[in-house]
Formats: sequence, C-alpha cells, structure tokens
Amino acid sequence: MSVTSSIRAGPVSQAYLQHRQKLISDDKQTGLRANLDAKEQVVDKIILTEKGALMDPSIYNRTIYSPSLSFYKSKPEMEKTNLFKIIQSMPKGGILHIHDLAMGTIDWLVKNATYRDHIYMCVDADNLIILAAFRKPPQNPDCVWKCVKSERKSSGNTVRFDQMLKQNLSFLAVDPVVQYVDNDRAWMRFYKYFSQVMQIVYYIPVFKDFLWNALEQIRSDNAQYVEYRGQLEGLFDLDGVKHDAEFGTLMVKEVMTNFTRCYPDFTGGKVIMTGYRHTSREKIFQEVKTAVMLRQKYPDFFLGYDLVGDEVWYNSLLYYLDALLYPSTLEPPFKLPYYFHAGETDWQETEIDYNLIDALLLNTTRIGHGFALSKHPHLMEIARKKQIAVEVNPVSNQLLRLVTDLRNHPMTSLMAGGFPVVISSDDPMVWEALPLSHDFFLALTAMSGRETGLAFLKQLAINSINYSGMSKEEKQRALKLWQTKWDTFIKKHTMQPKPSRSLQFSYDIRSSCYVNRP
Amino acid sequence: MSVTSSIRAGPVSQAYLQHRQKLISDDKQTGLRANLDAKEQVVDKIILTEKGALMDPSIYNRTIYSPSLSFYKSKPEMEKTNLFKIIQSMPKGGILHIHDLAMGTIDWLVKNATYRDHIYMCVDADNLIILAAFRKPPQNPDCVWKCVKSERKSSGNTVRFDQMLKQNLSFLAVDPVVQYVDNDRAWMRFYKYFSQVMQIVYYIPVFKDFLWNALEQIRSDNAQYVEYRGQLEGLFDLDGVKHDAEFGTLMVKEVMTNFTRCYPDFTGGKVIMTGYRHTSREKIFQEVKTAVMLRQKYPDFFLGYDLVGDEVWYNSLLYYLDALLYPSTLEPPFKLPYYFHAGETDWQETEIDYNLIDALLLNTTRIGHGFALSKHPHLMEIARKKQIAVEVNPVSNQLLRLVTDLRNHPMTSLMAGGFPVVISSDDPMVWEALPLSHDFFLALTAMSGRETGLAFLKQLAINSINYSGMSKEEKQRALKLWQTKWDTFIKKHTMQPKPSRSLQFSYDIRSSCYVNRP
Repeated sequence: MSVTSSIRAGPVSQAYLQHRQKLISDDKQTGLRANLDAKEQVVDKIILTEKGALMDPSIYNRTIYSPSLSFYKSKPEMEKTNLFKIIQSMPKGGILHIHDLAMGTIDWLVKNATYRDHIYMCVDADNLIILAAFRKPPQNPDCVWKCVKSERKSSGNTVRFDQMLKQNLSFLAVDPVVQYVDNDRAWMRFYKYFSQVMQIVYYIPVFKDFLWNALEQIRSDNAQYVEYRGQLEGLFDLDGVKHDAEFGTLMVKEVMTNFTRCYPDFTGGKVIMTGYRHTSREKIFQEVKTAVMLRQKYPDFFLGYDLVGDEVWYNSLLYYLDALLYPSTLEPPFKLPYYFHAGETDWQETEIDYNLIDALLLNTTRIGHGFALSKHPHLMEIARKKQIAVEVNPVSNQLLRLVTDLRNHPMTSLMAGGFPVVISSDDPMVWEALPLSHDFFLALTAMSGRETGLAFLKQLAINSINYSGMSKEEKQRALKLWQTKWDTFIKKHTMQPKPSRSLQFSYDIRSSCYVNRP
Repeated sequence: MSVTSSIRAGPVSQAYLQHRQKLISDDKQTGLRANLDAKEQVVDKIILTEKGALMDPSIYNRTIYSPSLSFYKSKPEMEKTNLFKIIQSMPKGGILHIHDLAMGTIDWLVKNATYRDHIYMCVDADNLIILAAFRKPPQNPDCVWKCVKSERKSSGNTVRFDQMLKQNLSFLAVDPVVQYVDNDRAWMRFYKYFSQVMQIVYYIPVFKDFLWNALEQIRSDNAQYVEYRGQLEGLFDLDGVKHDAEFGTLMVKEVMTNFTRCYPDFTGGKVIMTGYRHTSREKIFQEVKTAVMLRQKYPDFFLGYDLVGDEVWYNSLLYYLDALLYPSTLEPPFKLPYYFHAGETDWQETEIDYNLIDALLLNTTRIGHGFALSKHPHLMEIARKKQIAVEVNPVSNQLLRLVTDLRNHPMTSLMAGGFPVVISSDDPMVWEALPLSHDFFLALTAMSGRETGLAFLKQLAINSINYSGMSKEEKQRALKLWQTKWDTFIKKHTMQPKPSRSLQFSYDIRSSCYVNRP
C-alpha cells in the first residue's frame, strides 16, 4: 500500500517493515485457508476485487456496509452483486446442518403443495395460517379448517392470495432484527413456523415431492451432498396412519437414491434422526433405542441422533442423560454417533451453555451451532484436538437474534484460528435463503478479513466433505467429484479474467485521506 | 441442580456426572478469577444471588434481560438494582482508559462551568451548541457567539435552559443503538462532542475545577487511581495564550497532587499524552519529541504517548511510523512507553485492523480497546506472553456501534481464557456514566457467566493496579491501600449477609419446566 511507500526509507523503518510483513503473514497462516495453485490464484484475485468493491467504499467513504446489516436488508443487496453469482456458481461441497421442514422453498409449498387436493388451512389466534392434509378435516373450533383450493378461488385474486400465504409463512415478512428484541422473542415466532407446515409437509405425497424439490434446490445451488436432520417418524397418508421412523428413513432414502440416480453429479444424502427437547424422557429413550436399531440396520445411510428445539426454553442434554447413555450400556457397548445441537445461546455458564460439556462428554461427532463455544477455551481445545467440527449457520444465528452484526459472530475468531468449521443454513426455507450461497456470502464478507478470499471458501467446501458423516471411501469419492466440479469452476472464471469493477484506494499525503485512483 | 438429582443413579451415570463436574471446573479455571477467602465467599454468594435475581427470570421465564440491551435502556434498569449498589461500593482499583474531555460530568459542566463569566455559546449548522471562553468573542458568522449567562436569563426558564444544554451535549439524548446504524454514523456524532466542549474545558480556570470534579467523581465511585489521557497542550486563558504540553502536564500534576493531599485514601494519577490521528506527520513528530522530553523530565508522572481518534476514518499507526520509531533512533535509544489505541474496529485484515500489528511491534505497554484482537489468535498469544493488557470499555464499544448485545463482546471469550484485561469507561461523561460502576456492572452481568461473581470483579480490580503504568513500589503501595479498602468492603457486606431477594429455580419433572420454588 502507498502508506508504506511514503515512509522514509531509513534502515530502522526498512527492518521494521520486513518484520511487520512477517508478522502479518504469520497471523494469516492461522486461518482456514486451503492452498491455491496458479489458476486458483487468478480466481482469488477476482474474488478479492469484488470483495473490495463491496467493502472499500464503506471503509474509506463511510457508505453503509450491507453484509453487516440484518439479512432482511442484506439479502436483496447481496443478490445484486457479481460476488454472489461467483459464490452461487462455486461447488460448495455438502450441507451438514439443515432441517427437514425448512429445507425447501416457501414458493414451492405455496405454488405446488397448496394447489393439491385434500389441503386445508386454518387461521389461529395469532393470525398465523396452519396448513394440513386431511381426507375430511376434523372439527377444530379454535381454528376452523377450510379447503385451500376453495379459499383461493373465493378470494378472487390468486396472485394476491398466494402472496398472502407466503407472507404468512415467511420469517422475512418483517425484519426480525427490528421486530424481535431478543433470542426468546425470535424463537417464539420461529417455533410456530414448524406447526404451520408440519401437517402438510409430512403428508406423504407432498413429502416426497417437497424433498425432491429441496434436493433440486441444493443441487442447483452447487452443493453435492446433504445431511438431512428430521424426526423421520410421523409421515402420514389420508388414512390417518402415522408411520414410524424406519418408514421415514426408507422414504427419505428412496427419494435421495432416485435423485442421485437421476443426477450422477450429485453425491447423495444421509439422515440424522432428531428428537424434540420438549418431549418426555421416556419418548427420547424410545427414540434412542430406535436410532440404535436404524444405525445397525442402515449404517450407510442412517448417521445418528440429535436433539432439537430452543435450548434455553426446553430441556438440556443432561436432562436426557439416561437415554443418551443407553447405547453405551449395551453389551457390547454400541457407539451411536451423536450430532448434537449445543451452545446455541448467549447464556454463559448455565445448564443451557453446558450442553456443550455434555455434547463433548457424549462424544458428539460434530456440534450444531456451538455459538457459545468461544466462551469456553478449554472445551474449544478439546473439540479442536478431537477434530469435532462446528456447524456454523450465520443467517440463522442473526435472525434468531444471537448476534446482530455478523462481523461480531464469535466463530469469526475461531475461523481465524483455523478451528474446524463448516458453514450451513439451518432453516433456509424459513427466511427465503438459498441452501448455501447466502450463508457462504456472509461468511466471506462479514466473517473473514478483507484479504481473505478463495482459499477460505475452498477450505470451507473441503471441510464440508471431510467433516461429514460419510465413510472414508465415500469421502474420497465425494472429494473427487467435487474436484472435477471445482476445476470446471476455476476454468470458467480464469477464462473471464477481467473483474467487472475495480476500485483502487491509496493514501494521499496532502489530504491525509484515502482516495480513489482511477 | 435438581436436573442431576433426578437422574437414575446407575454406575454409568454416576461416573459420567463426576467426569462432568471435573470438566466444568477445569473449564472455569481458565477465566479471570482471583482466589477468595471464606469471608469473600460469603460476599460472592450475595453477588451471585443478586446476579441470579436479574438473570434467572430471563433464562427461565423469558423476561427481557436489560444488560443485553442498549446502555440507553439498561442504565436506568441497572441503577435500580442492589447489585449496582454493591458494585458501586466495591473498591475497583484504577481507571486506565479515560479521556480528558470526557472524564467529568455534563451536569457539572452545565451547572457550574457555564454559569461563569466569559462563557459563550453558539449553535452550529447541525443544531449543536458549541461552548467557549473568551474575553470578547470573535466574529463568527456561521455560528454567532452569545453570552451563556444572558441567554439563560432571557430564556425565562433556567431549569429548562440547563436541561436543553445537557440534552444538546449528551450522547444519550437519543438511543445511539437505534439512532446510528453503524460505527461510522456513531463516530460522526461522537466526534462533534469534543468540539462542543473543548473550548470551555481547556479554559484554565474551568479546567482546574473540571479536573478536580472528575477526580471527585472517580473517588466517590470507589476508584483510587487514574491514568489521564489528554493532549496536554492547548490550555488557555483569556489573554489568548495557548500553553504547551509541559504547562498542561504540570497543571494536571498540580491538581492531582492537591487532590491526593486532600484525600490520602486516593493513590493519585498519571498522564498519557495523546496526539490526534487526523494531524500531520510533522505535528506527531513534534509531539513524540515533546513526549520523550516530558518522560525524561517527569518519569514518575508522565507515562507515555498514544494516538486517538477514529481509527477507520483517520490515519493508521503505520502512517506515523517515522515519528513513532524516532525514540528508538536516539543514541542511546530511548524507550518511550506507548499506550496505543488499536483494533477499535470491525474491519478485519485492513490497515485499521493492522494497528494491532504496529502496536505490538512498537512495544505498546497496553492496548486501548483491542476490540479486533480476538480475530488474530497469533497476535493474541504474543500479547498474552508479553502480558500486554487490553483496556476494555464495554459501554463505549456498544454505543459506538461495534457490538449490540454485550454478551457478544469479543472480550468475553478472552476473559474466559484468562487474557490480561482491565475494564474502563473511555468517555463516561459523554454517555452520562459513572467512571467505572456501569462498565463493571455490564462486564459482570453481560460479559461473564451466570456462576461468575466476586472472584472476577476482584481480579479486574487487581489487574487495574498490576497493569497500570505505576512503578513496582507504587503498585505495592496502591495494592496495600486497595486491600484495606477491600477488607472494609468485605466486612461491610458480610455483616449484612441476607440478600435482598432470592429466587431459586429448579426443574419440575412433571412439567419438564424450570419453576420458581418459594
């Protein structure tokens, strides 16, 4: 930079500047950063130019930096950028943290699922629309079921009716950062979403197509693999039969197998069974037993078990200790892999926060969120040594009000220290995000430094395969497939070497200001 | 907690719970935590009960947690608590990061300084009132000088006039977290405050009393020592003479010496000279030369040099490298201690962020703010090894929009890892805070865990002496004085062992909820 060039070239300064360069370089070495070859370095330059075009005007001209704002505001802004298009086109590997009821798109649900026969809606006391499938809706005085098709027809305006449905489901109908004062308030609305869609998505004919559509979304967002978190049990048909978790496992497997057959450039998917933190110990005990059975029966597809739901408001891992220790009490002990949500909280040194302790003691394979982990350096070192990756979901953490400006996300520090991290999207359907691109964009522009580009993105993609639940051989195959896609991506972008915009800032000594040099 | 007591007492669970307790304990050991004797443990329990009374309803009953909100909202709430009174009465050691023009109170300035002769005001284009002292005000067409006394009289309502003046000066007239969208916007208003008050505070008769009043505030907030950061030069009288930095140094020394003579329970104060990041290289060079002279001449009082002002908008340390290296080029090299502001930014891997690099390379004694340090694990380890303490100013960082919810302050992680930290207030006058109590309250309630109490506060107080610029002997004397005050504080609170409120929450197995047990 021109700051250094205008410094007096005395021997003291020169030695200083060399020492300085070494220290900057040593400091950067600690971060998540894959090696880049010559071609990749060309793409890195393009990315850094685009990143600079976004960031430098804010740094040097005080314009507002949209990636620091609420996703409600940053989403439309990022979608206009060339950088977003590059990130969309980048092969991003796998999605390791995504929930069954929130992995599709609201548009598909509204435009496809609600147009089908047997779909009903009711409006609850909070003015939220609950969707469900019935052969004949039951009596429901507090929330009277009405046929969606008829309601749409009688509304007289299909477009407006569908828009209303979408608005009613979306977490992004308002700005969550403005609307919800804290994590509790945000969760209260967020939780309701699941009851709005559960009874339509788990209806088997809808479910199969919903899942297929979600996989299409994932593939077209240039991810190649997914670990589906879902309760698995509860799929139903119009006869009112609710199926068990094995049925659900086989149905997800069937859809994913078909999908992978249709798209050989897709690695596939696996499932993690999830229980709800608000259910009884007995229920969780039964689920763990079921999970043991399914893991034994389908070891290539059924990865393990997790507990989901607001950690603050519902039960801790410790509360379910007997159930969670059960596999280790079998003769011989059975190693049921856990993928626990833990530390998705701002409450330090509480039973909530200590879910991190229990996740580690119960040998969790990865940690979901781990938002509070940076407040526990001792636990962090244990996780690092055991290579327990943290699944970071930037948009989710912001909209659920754990952090406002993502530049302050605690994982920024961990990533700068090379901690094993994967980026995921948690519930992209709820806030109208793509499966990975929005979260990757924000990880790059708000959670990494000005000079960090492709090496970081590449490492995140590689991490998503290396820290997945795939077997060693599967990982090798997935990495090979990823590498082919990656090479195509690099080739495409090295053939268009000219960045669309270029801004160079340098110091003007007279004005003591950064100025834009044409 | 009752969660564990309801767990089946099988051998597996028992071994697990023992292992768990050990891990929780090991995890806590890493934090800032002084040893506590039996009496101190009684006070610790009182503090933890008060902390619980504040925190537990939010955790278990979803009430809003005021320490997580903007200081604009949390200030009146915290002032109502018993915990705040305990923290006020606690001997907190020294204030190591506070600025000359913002270390008093707006009330004193309005009610005392502006009632004096020769004080004028003008209203600028932004509707901000600039205060100044003149024998006869100069022509100033853009902002016409008017006598404050006359304006007050002609307003017809002294109380309302003074309220208006206060509102016009205070950063807390609006909620900065709502009003200013980012750090830039907040700084723009913040910067103007200094031009509002500089020309009245640096008027020698006002200055002496202003400083005395600030010291009174500090002492009555139970701090015993202060390191005053100020430009030192520029004190003036009605003859229009602007005095140099040595004059300022001697004047501050005189006031501090008198004050310490009047109050033998006060350790005293020292000065750190500050230059502005927006001034020329030549000016900073001259200042560093002056600082070398003053450090040589008054080694017991003049601590060293720092640069202040918005790091993002103005010049980096590197920009002034020649000046800052100057003392090391002397024969023999002179070690001028630096106390650099560095890393008060969200912009990672920029010249702004790299002020941290230069602060370390220039052997800074402490780091002012160091907000970005957690994003540089390598630099963090260097600072830790060299025992370079970070001066953390929670309220300042929040109101200048670096962080919204202080539970996310990056220093929370560093403190949990035992990094050398002191808590200070930066510019308490600007946002109507006490010299230390509000920041200590927020450090305890938002930046440390539920189970962290007196040991943390005690360590912060001890750190403020150990990491000060005092000599070894002075530190010993200061610690001895602090210990006497501390013993009195502990005695007082152990004589009132009953906490004012007590809320006990425990798990109710039937409802799977935390309930309040009377």
